[in-house]
Amino acid sequence: MATPSKSAPRVVIVGAGFGGLNAARSLARDKVQITIVDRKNHHTFQPLLYQVATAALSPGEIAEPIRSVFRSNSNVITLLEEVQGFDLDQRLVHTGEQDIPYDYLVVAAGATHAYFGHDEWKLFAPGLKTIEDALEIRRRVLLTFELAERQTVMGVSDEPLNFVVVGAGPTGVELAGTLAEITRHVLVHEFRNIDPSRARIILLEGGPRVLPAYPDDLSRSAEEQLRRLGVEVRTSTMVTSIEAGAVRIGETRIVAPVILWAAGVAASALGKALGVPVDRAGRVLVNADLSIPGHPEVFVVGDLAALKDENGKMVPGVAPVAIQEGKFVAKTIRRDLARKPRENFHYWDKGSLATIGRAAAIAQFGKIHISGFIAWLSWLFVHIFFLIGFQNRLLVFIQWAWSYFTYERGARLITGDTTLPGWSGMKPMSPGVSKPDDDKVPAGTAR
Amino acid sequence: MATPSKSAPRVVIVGAGFGGLNAARSLARDKVQITIVDRKNHHTFQPLLYQVATAALSPGEIAEPIRSVFRSNSNVITLLEEVQGFDLDQRLVHTGEQDIPYDYLVVAAGATHAYFGHDEWKLFAPGLKTIEDALEIRRRVLLTFELAERQTVMGVSDEPLNFVVVGAGPTGVELAGTLAEITRHVLVHEFRNIDPSRARIILLEGGPRVLPAYPDDLSRSAEEQLRRLGVEVRTSTMVTSIEAGAVRIGETRIVAPVILWAAGVAASALGKALGVPVDRAGRVLVNADLSIPGHPEVFVVGDLAALKDENGKMVPGVAPVAIQEGKFVAKTIRRDLARKPRENFHYWDKGSLATIGRAAAIAQFGKIHISGFIAWLSWLFVHIFFLIGFQNRLLVFIQWAWSYFTYERGARLITGDTTLPGWSGMKPMSPGVSKPDDDKVPAGTAR
Repeated sequence: MATPSKSAPRVVIVGAGFGGLNAARSLARDKVQITIVDRKNHHTFQPLLYQVATAALSPGEIAEPIRSVFRSNSNVITLLEEVQGFDLDQRLVHTGEQDIPYDYLVVAAGATHAYFGHDEWKLFAPGLKTIEDALEIRRRVLLTFELAERQTVMGVSDEPLNFVVVGAGPTGVELAGTLAEITRHVLVHEFRNIDPSRARIILLEGGPRVLPAYPDDLSRSAEEQLRRLGVEVRTSTMVTSIEAGAVRIGETRIVAPVILWAAGVAASALGKALGVPVDRAGRVLVNADLSIPGHPEVFVVGDLAALKDENGKMVPGVAPVAIQEGKFVAKTIRRDLARKPRENFHYWDKGSLATIGRAAAIAQFGKIHISGFIAWLSWLFVHIFFLIGFQNRLLVFIQWAWSYFTYERGARLITGDTTLPGWSGMKPMSPGVSKPDDDKVPAGTAR
Repeated sequence: MATPSKSAPRVVIVGAGFGGLNAARSLARDKVQITIVDRKNHHTFQPLLYQVATAALSPGEIAEPIRSVFRSNSNVITLLEEVQGFDLDQRLVHTGEQDIPYDYLVVAAGATHAYFGHDEWKLFAPGLKTIEDALEIRRRVLLTFELAERQTVMGVSDEPLNFVVVGAGPTGVELAGTLAEITRHVLVHEFRNIDPSRARIILLEGGPRVLPAYPDDLSRSAEEQLRRLGVEVRTSTMVTSIEAGAVRIGETRIVAPVILWAAGVAASALGKALGVPVDRAGRVLVNADLSIPGHPEVFVVGDLAALKDENGKMVPGVAPVAIQEGKFVAKTIRRDLARKPRENFHYWDKGSLATIGRAAAIAQFGKIHISGFIAWLSWLFVHIFFLIGFQNRLLVFIQWAWSYFTYERGARLITGDTTLPGWSGMKPMSPGVSKPDDDKVPAGTAR
């Protein structure tokens, strides 16, 4: 058992994703001094990131400033800061600037994209983990249609309007389904020279089926729903390389202005930084109470933790697990301070949902498997319910209702640069055209 | 009079601000072929940009994709493209990529920031004309408090929490008033180590009074309302230089992590590119029908046009003027095509409103001058009414109602880089921490 210092014990929480945030919320009313360290100022509701990437929602609607969540908890300090490592013996968290002492440490640093050792693919095939990622994907998707329209007006030969999504887990399926929906319903009447509905959405999956974490029948249903939305699903297909504007599958080369990466995740490098055993994905092999070997005062929760359930099956890297783990660790610290014995963590699987597109989803509640509209409605309600902040819930609800009935999208902005990597057939616009600090009006000159 | 070609006359509109957008909307149901060229994909509702800069609204709520506005007008082509110049004899618009022929040309390229020949100040004191500008200002404002909190936790000597706004026209007044409101009401309970309400908001104005375009009594009222909100107003104060994190006024140096530029505008360089006389600010001296000398088929509208009213007074560079000018040009083209004689443009001044902050504004309707809450309510309703898109109106209304009653702000996200130019006393966070294509989780390593 950890020995707390005489004053209120200091709990340092690294990362304000679902795990860290819920640990902090559960502990905020206890007599502890909490410091949350995150390199973003906001908690991101990751399950809706793909809706920002596909222009349905604005970033502000799915994110909440961390310090705003803890506005009325005077014992919670929030620091915008990057953690570099730990000194477990001295009980210190190292940042670039300072050492933060702790009595309890909760590491909830999550996971990041993994490119299977090909980090050079990242520029050509962005993944989706942060608001910035989502805005970059949105920029690329919307820009592709703008550039294609411009090119066609000019009479230059067409660039194929292909969108490739690599990986058919929940994020890949959501992205592919929503892209199909946008091209077929939202953009189709707005272009005069190209036909967005002829865009091809290609979903590549290395394994034999989409949504491999779900039972067979739901996988098949998801694939069928994807095809109905217009997505080309190619399972058992391994990407061998990615370059600017093209994907290679062995000898085949698919030209695509937009390539999105939803294939692999790796645990944060902060897992290894703890100096205890990790699994192949870099996840920390935690004890049954989510502490790490030899350090009962240090916990790892969320995607960074590797934990098996009673049946020896890995607990999945999803939001409900991180939430339950965060709350469990808070309870454990509370029991420690009350000198009660610790308990083991048990994941309570309330079911899982994956959305595919308009009125298309799958759901599993124990032995009950649902597909289509009812699953989709369940998904909508669950996600509105768990979104943080009443205002966000109201805004998201309005946006969704509006989109459903009008087929419009609320946030179709291109901000930042107006070039695409690997877009051939045309020079990029002159450099600096839309840089953040640039002016509204082109500084054009007569010939 | 211009001679239209045999098929539907080709109208090319450069810029989709208030002038260009309204010209296009008025003409969209006529037998003309319209091409809108803009280097953004969206129309920006500029009067609410400061609300994005101060985290009240999300970008998507005040911007609308141009092609979405013209979704049901099949005779309107939208091109994301930067105009470089014109060939008035050949009737061509030059872009980097192509020449666009026209029968009628409407140049509505607007205005940009002017730094009085000191373009090097731009990096240290961003202006507010685009969504990107607004996001950069938001980033700097929110980041300042985060860095100050971190610095104080570390025990490093405090950086003064000064915010300097240069220029007390409508934008400067709005920014200063809203910054005061945020620091006193929104952020004050969220920081544990700094007191945001002790932040100083300093509004510098070279002229003798704020809002110089308004009558004396309203200027005085605006200044009084600013002071009540906590803004330090310094009139007859000329900035002599701006450096990273500091403003100089003669011998005085004001250290300020955030400096905002609202002092000068200059017309787009596309005005000069027309090759006709311009005034000192680069605005095109248009004829009474808004055409340019020698080219009845070429019109200039909005902030790029220099026009005097019947009393010899310059028509102001505000949205209502641009809207009326755009509509007038559409009508003129319609009359041309119907072989009716042209008329002269007359600006109908319906009054003007400037907002200052929470429940603070001024309004002038002819001889009626109003200040305070009623003026502020008028401002709210006018701006919701003119916002484009029903959905935007609803969302903005909800955000405002929410903010008014809760003192919260809906879009307090820091995205992008987490350093500030000139922020002393601390090293920046390690490079690449929050770049757009970066991962969620720090790639920290143990020592």
